[in-house]
Amino acid sequence: MTVRTAEEYLNDIRRMKVRVFLNGKQIENLLDNPVTRSVVNATAKIYELANDPRYEEIMTAKSHLFENEKINRANHPCRSIKDLELRLEMALLTAQALGTCNYRCPGSDAITALSSTTWEIDKELGTNYHDRFNRFLRMVQLQDLVCSAGLTDAKGDRSKRPTEQEDPDVYIRIVKRRDDGIVVRGAKLHQSGAIAVNHTLVLPGRALRPNEEDYAVSFVVPNSLKGLTYIAQWTPFSAERMMTEDCAELGNPQYGVRETSMVIFDDVFVPWENVFMCGETAYAGKLIARFARIHRMNCGGACKVGFADLIIGATAGIAEYQGIEGTPKIREKLVDMMKIREAAYAIALAAALKGKEDPPRSGIWFPNDMYGNVAKLVVADGFWELMKVAGDIAGGLVVTMPSEKELTNPETRDYIKKYLKSVVPAEKRMRLIKFLQNWTAGLHGPGTWHGAGSTAAQEISIARLTDFKEKKKLAEELAGIKD
Amino acid sequence: MTVRTAEEYLNDIRRMKVRVFLNGKQIENLLDNPVTRSVVNATAKIYELANDPRYEEIMTAKSHLFENEKINRANHPCRSIKDLELRLEMALLTAQALGTCNYRCPGSDAITALSSTTWEIDKELGTNYHDRFNRFLRMVQLQDLVCSAGLTDAKGDRSKRPTEQEDPDVYIRIVKRRDDGIVVRGAKLHQSGAIAVNHTLVLPGRALRPNEEDYAVSFVVPNSLKGLTYIAQWTPFSAERMMTEDCAELGNPQYGVRETSMVIFDDVFVPWENVFMCGETAYAGKLIARFARIHRMNCGGACKVGFADLIIGATAGIAEYQGIEGTPKIREKLVDMMKIREAAYAIALAAALKGKEDPPRSGIWFPNDMYGNVAKLVVADGFWELMKVAGDIAGGLVVTMPSEKELTNPETRDYIKKYLKSVVPAEKRMRLIKFLQNWTAGLHGPGTWHGAGSTAAQEISIARLTDFKEKKKLAEELAGIKD
Amino acid sequence: MTVRTAEEYLNDIRRMKVRVFLNGKQIENLLDNPVTRSVVNATAKIYELANDPRYEEIMTAKSHLFENEKINRANHPCRSIKDLELRLEMALLTAQALGTCNYRCPGSDAITALSSTTWEIDKELGTNYHDRFNRFLRMVQLQDLVCSAGLTDAKGDRSKRPTEQEDPDVYIRIVKRRDDGIVVRGAKLHQSGAIAVNHTLVLPGRALRPNEEDYAVSFVVPNSLKGLTYIAQWTPFSAERMMTEDCAELGNPQYGVRETSMVIFDDVFVPWENVFMCGETAYAGKLIARFARIHRMNCGGACKVGFADLIIGATAGIAEYQGIEGTPKIREKLVDMMKIREAAYAIALAAALKGKEDPPRSGIWFPNDMYGNVAKLVVADGFWELMKVAGDIAGGLVVTMPSEKELTNPETRDYIKKYLKSVVPAEKRMRLIKFLQNWTAGLHGPGTWHGAGSTAAQEISIARLTDFKEKKKLAEELAGIKD
Amino acid sequence: MTVRTAEEYLNDIRRMKVRVFLNGKQIENLLDNPVTRSVVNATAKIYELANDPRYEEIMTAKSHLFENEKINRANHPCRSIKDLELRLEMALLTAQALGTCNYRCPGSDAITALSSTTWEIDKELGTNYHDRFNRFLRMVQLQDLVCSAGLTDAKGDRSKRPTEQEDPDVYIRIVKRRDDGIVVRGAKLHQSGAIAVNHTLVLPGRALRPNEEDYAVSFVVPNSLKGLTYIAQWTPFSAERMMTEDCAELGNPQYGVRETSMVIFDDVFVPWENVFMCGETAYAGKLIARFARIHRMNCGGACKVGFADLIIGATAGIAEYQGIEGTPKIREKLVDMMKIREAAYAIALAAALKGKEDPPRSGIWFPNDMYGNVAKLVVADGFWELMKVAGDIAGGLVVTMPSEKELTNPETRDYIKKYLKSVVPAEKRMRLIKFLQNWTAGLHGPGTWHGAGSTAAQEISIARLTDFKEKKKLAEELAGIKD
Repeated sequence: MTVRTAEEYLNDIRRMKVRVFLNGKQIENLLDNPVTRSVVNATAKIYELANDPRYEEIMTAKSHLFENEKINRANHPCRSIKDLELRLEMALLTAQALGTCNYRCPGSDAITALSSTTWEIDKELGTNYHDRFNRFLRMVQLQDLVCSAGLTDAKGDRSKRPTEQEDPDVYIRIVKRRDDGIVVRGAKLHQSGAIAVNHTLVLPGRALRPNEEDYAVSFVVPNSLKGLTYIAQWTPFSAERMMTEDCAELGNPQYGVRETSMVIFDDVFVPWENVFMCGETAYAGKLIARFARIHRMNCGGACKVGFADLIIGATAGIAEYQGIEGTPKIREKLVDMMKIREAAYAIALAAALKGKEDPPRSGIWFPNDMYGNVAKLVVADGFWELMKVAGDIAGGLVVTMPSEKELTNPETRDYIKKYLKSVVPAEKRMRLIKFLQNWTAGLHGPGTWHGAGSTAAQEISIARLTDFKEKKKLAEELAGIKD
Repeated sequence: MTVRTAEEYLNDIRRMKVRVFLNGKQIENLLDNPVTRSVVNATAKIYELANDPRYEEIMTAKSHLFENEKINRANHPCRSIKDLELRLEMALLTAQALGTCNYRCPGSDAITALSSTTWEIDKELGTNYHDRFNRFLRMVQLQDLVCSAGLTDAKGDRSKRPTEQEDPDVYIRIVKRRDDGIVVRGAKLHQSGAIAVNHTLVLPGRALRPNEEDYAVSFVVPNSLKGLTYIAQWTPFSAERMMTEDCAELGNPQYGVRETSMVIFDDVFVPWENVFMCGETAYAGKLIARFARIHRMNCGGACKVGFADLIIGATAGIAEYQGIEGTPKIREKLVDMMKIREAAYAIALAAALKGKEDPPRSGIWFPNDMYGNVAKLVVADGFWELMKVAGDIAGGLVVTMPSEKELTNPETRDYIKKYLKSVVPAEKRMRLIKFLQNWTAGLHGPGTWHGAGSTAAQEISIARLTDFKEKKKLAEELAGIKD
Repeated sequence: MTVRTAEEYLNDIRRMKVRVFLNGKQIENLLDNPVTRSVVNATAKIYELANDPRYEEIMTAKSHLFENEKINRANHPCRSIKDLELRLEMALLTAQALGTCNYRCPGSDAITALSSTTWEIDKELGTNYHDRFNRFLRMVQLQDLVCSAGLTDAKGDRSKRPTEQEDPDVYIRIVKRRDDGIVVRGAKLHQSGAIAVNHTLVLPGRALRPNEEDYAVSFVVPNSLKGLTYIAQWTPFSAERMMTEDCAELGNPQYGVRETSMVIFDDVFVPWENVFMCGETAYAGKLIARFARIHRMNCGGACKVGFADLIIGATAGIAEYQGIEGTPKIREKLVDMMKIREAAYAIALAAALKGKEDPPRSGIWFPNDMYGNVAKLVVADGFWELMKVAGDIAGGLVVTMPSEKELTNPETRDYIKKYLKSVVPAEKRMRLIKFLQNWTAGLHGPGTWHGAGSTAAQEISIARLTDFKEKKKLAEELAGIKD
Repeated sequence: MTVRTAEEYLNDIRRMKVRVFLNGKQIENLLDNPVTRSVVNATAKIYELANDPRYEEIMTAKSHLFENEKINRANHPCRSIKDLELRLEMALLTAQALGTCNYRCPGSDAITALSSTTWEIDKELGTNYHDRFNRFLRMVQLQDLVCSAGLTDAKGDRSKRPTEQEDPDVYIRIVKRRDDGIVVRGAKLHQSGAIAVNHTLVLPGRALRPNEEDYAVSFVVPNSLKGLTYIAQWTPFSAERMMTEDCAELGNPQYGVRETSMVIFDDVFVPWENVFMCGETAYAGKLIARFARIHRMNCGGACKVGFADLIIGATAGIAEYQGIEGTPKIREKLVDMMKIREAAYAIALAAALKGKEDPPRSGIWFPNDMYGNVAKLVVADGFWELMKVAGDIAGGLVVTMPSEKELTNPETRDYIKKYLKSVVPAEKRMRLIKFLQNWTAGLHGPGTWHGAGSTAAQEISIARLTDFKEKKKLAEELAGIKD
């Protein structure tokens, strides 16, 4: 057994018949379109990193299903504190290397959440979801397949519960239970990189109550399954990439911005062996909460920290390119950026190092819940601050710079070289400015904010995790207040 | 004499032979290219507003050069407190109406700055710049022409003064003094909308010292003059606009984002009658400081406040569309947004209402310098906060939404309508989300930060304007400290 | 007619028989106790300033009740924009001069609010409150008396309205209506300096509804009236002042910290001529809102700005005393402080300059409501920032400094002089540190926050003053959304 | 061997002849004066906690000098990651229990720093400091003595180095080297609780250079040594405590605020056996940096977090007492407080869990330097935020409340009980308000800021610990920039 190469993954992609629409048109081949190709590039790079001996400890793990054989860490549920810490380091490393999503990240966290929750359901209700899931996981580990995860439902009117909606499909649901499986209908939004994976794991998007059994459903589907449609996001950055012959001109040439899609489940049939929850409403909230617990740590406290490293590095670089790196103000602002970066990472690290097995004896470990949430909150605000400072130091060109094409336009290239030269040649400066444009004048603010759930969700978690009464008692005791 | 109509302005544009490059290619006609057309649209809209009887007081003024005849306020130097206040209201109104630059704004502020400074130079040195400038201004008022202003030089190595640079041209300079005029060389960066104006006023970009006479130059050039080249900015938003057949799909359909260009002066000849400063180094700093004084007030305290109104409105709207407008948290965040909006505007208003004639007896009035700077600082930070809150409330779709084209794609339109419906139909929601994408996931952060000079410039102004010794004395007196 | 001297006011104080309790004991004489004397000192200083020719324009006004004779501005209702601006300047000047409350401030703002509202009630209901009030005001102006204002009721359980409370007296109310007047019962909290005034104006503390007539009451009482009891605040700063023989050792030697008291109305009889509202529930909210409108402007945008000047001055001073004033970081922090100071003042200035007569034809003017509220909000947050920065630069001594008494202790004075010397002698440094202790390690944080109503009140005002629908329309229009 | 009881410690205190001055007078007996008694009370409480079986793991350790016998953790140098974590938990627990300094904290951290650095000096230079220090430490462990630590010198003119000062004594220095020991002169400022300990460890206050040998000195002195004088801090809170017969009325009845003193060394003789560094300039910076490394973690990330628990608890309590705990705004603010609390603690935890042996093989462990610094920075800003929010929710009474003595004053007690009653009786509310006054309107802002070194020191550490070049390289690589 082995970790696949990027090339093997690309062969999968070439064979895949996934039904993707982008800007109103169907994509014939993920590799031919520059936008979808950026997702493939990023995912292929993850395979490369996993095969790089320097990163072996971080990027691979020992399978508990295959007698400790080496597998890709993305397909390994966290089974110890050490696993949680290495999971975090993987998120940091891949973010630094890609400057965009490691698209295997949500799938990886779903694997951990499902490993734990299927074990728990089986134990308490005598079902056999855990075996089914492990069977699936064995295949995934064996072939080193990529999984995505679908979480966020369409939601319709947010003041109503699933069964109260005008259209019952705005939360994914079971429309039919058959002898050989179930038929599901609905949509999952915001799925990062889902177009270029082998399988998509679907989890309920919220806690559920009795009578909402049809919504308590978790399962896996292969990407090219009948009934599945992917409608990709479309942003100014998609347009720019579509229009640009040479990606080197772009802010993140190879890997682009985080590309997501809506995934439509139009009466999709799922055989029982691929169903991991079916009607157990009491466990829907647990499953999603466990996913959030590990995903917030990784997303908030490591992925965005890797991005922060790139932003800080580019900011230090542009200050140097423009001849101002020595001024006290610049130094101070760089330290402010570091403070945010280190705070977020340290909190996530504490989350990992204070992880717990959950449920006890399941063999599956999750980070400390409070710290994971706090890491995400620190990053949500902090990322805007990073963007602000980086944009400040980069200067107005981050918005007003002409196209790099002018460097080869005989009528303008001399002007550009003459007037955009600073301490370094215009070419070099322009490329770093373009890189910073991607970070400071683009999608990253709201993207970071809402990734792994928006801040409101973290605040609710903190309220839930805090025992205010006990703190009140401490204060009253010291103040000499008796009841 | 009259205020021109939009149509008359469009005729100018059709006749103009301005040499513009965008994304490596020359633009044949500003009206045919969707990016350059957005600039023309915005400028034409200003003419419309000036002809709208509802806005007559704000958008027009009485000329002091033509016996109080009605002119476009953009061409009227501020001659009273009332003028300053109406100038501010004009900036607010046009920002609300366009959601992008009123491209006449820098030109208008340059007119005020030059009116004052040419008067002062003449008075003190016996030159005749003021007459020349007024002759030019009379033509501009008479024909209601659009002027741009060029401020920011290329700057090269920022730790060196103009004469110390490796390439002496990185600050615009006089390369030749002739009997009939001067020849200038250099470039001005970040010029908002300069491609679609009639004339460009050039001012020195910094205070100067003796021996830097060649850089102490101010003049005006018509847009299609020989030697002038415009190299337009190129951003993901340019690309998106270029690719989109129907602009209605875009975030700001008609007027787009702020479009700027680098303007190259390649040995441009300027006859004496168009030269308004030529070697008077002592006045370079004054001229630029006066421009900054009025421009920071308008840019910080009114233009961005108009944008804030649009962001707040769209945020209140999307909360309503998504069924969450009643929650206390949303209300509170909207109030936080209002606090920023009102603070910035009130400070700018105080700047206008505490304006001063400068120099005394010149007839030209400027806002209070301290308040103008503070308004800009409040907005620079505040705008990031507005973006953050708006992006928070709008939700992840602000980044992940598919193209509006899917609404007409027979294979996906039903999915989109079903799953992006909320309290309002998908179409309506998508359009407001797209509008908010433009504000929260685009160019506005760094754009706002650097417009009218970055915050470092404002901080320097505040330090200059504060008498710390006098405050120290107040404290020592009250603390009972004697020397 | 004339403005009284400080000596004449002190004679009043000597004669007064006000029933005040401090730290569990009755105060025999306000001048003998060092805490209550600080209030008298501060109030006397206001008389001094009013007699200082340099401040004549700011500190005095022309009476509209006495044919434009000169009166103390504190007793002059605002009757024009100019009055509002001078009222603001008075608040700034007195704050700079005292470093504590101008205790005439709430009374002055109550005079403006009552002038307007009694006029309105009479006009609409045919009552004669306005005449009564003006009769009272004439006496006050003629004798230049000091008035306090009582606003905040005890409130009991805050989730209940006045009539629902277990104890109906937790809001001041009329317990009896007699032929010759009314009998009132209740308490007003947080009354700044109320012990050392001639009269206290009482206003309802909230908007009222039909059936709450007994609470819709406004009146005036002389300070030594039977049934009135003042229970003074007691803080560590009170204790320090009580214990210190030589006030020069204290942080604000002459004027101390803001001293307030609870004022108890224990079945106090008020003759009709001193009653200015009696049962007109519809006007209670208007009266309190008008008071807030002018008081927030003065309190937030000028009083605290005067304090900011002292803090900034002391911070600049201590940096100099400690030899670090030249470092870039210190300069920058001082500029940050100035930014807060100038923002708050400019907003308040805009409030004054955009004032309105209210109701029309009443002759009484109020500041712009939105800006007054925003000024207060900016100060509430900003003041904590000022404290933080000042404490940062002052250093740990601001907390850990020994008593100034050690300077005369033969066993320690040489040590103190040797080891607390910096660029200046220990004595000088210690005094400025003590002054800064008062500002950064004392009562000012929550004091500033809650003065003129806490921030929640301002946020409610902003929500009320904002037309979100209209902003939404602007956004929808520009986004091309039709209904 | 055992952990001492509080009573045994109190016996020491009764015997001690320490020369302390407070407010200009010598203190005869630390137990008789209410201010100095609060320090004794707090220290005695630490002994109580160490004897409480519930806290045995946290408060005690196994001595490496006495075959794993149980000792007080305060006297145990950190020898493992687990020790670092328990050290942190001790700081949290004692802060929660005292609401003021655990005065053994700096001494404890000095023990760790000296254990490591004396080992290193000996190893590299062949000296015998480590043996001397361990001999001293054995005595301390055996008798469970309390140690303080002296760090901050007087510093004089901060722009000059020690040898350049006008008065060479403003940094502690060796004035004489004798056969039997050294004579030292100087002062250490800000020493928390130093008056009530057995011994004071003195460390150099800064990094030193060759030729500054006289300043490279570390040693220990017993508290009652000839030549030692303690001049205690004097604040409004000292005055209040001095004046109050019944401490129950105070904000923190038993333990008061952090009490510090200046300690003067007037030609104090120290025998060689108590000298732990003498002229080794190269190690001065290391020693102080190691102290800072562990102290910032404890002070920033645990002690202040314990205080935060008390503030949050009291804020939740007062909201409940005043009937507003259910409003969404209050909930949200409490969560904001928790976010700060948890962030700081998690960062400190990461510092502990990522600790390192330093120097390798010394057996002494220190927390991760970056995280310790960041924890302190997060707390420095966060604590002001906590104070602001707590003061907001507590309301104006936190400043304006009368003395608790009024509750027993027959003339006012009924008024107080009637009008300060809320959902709970006035007595209960007043006590919690008083507790919150201590936190929000007192010394804690600047105290927290400067404890463990002000933020400037942490920022310098972060700059030193960051490899900006390496980050720049990451960015350039991804941006496709080659050199």
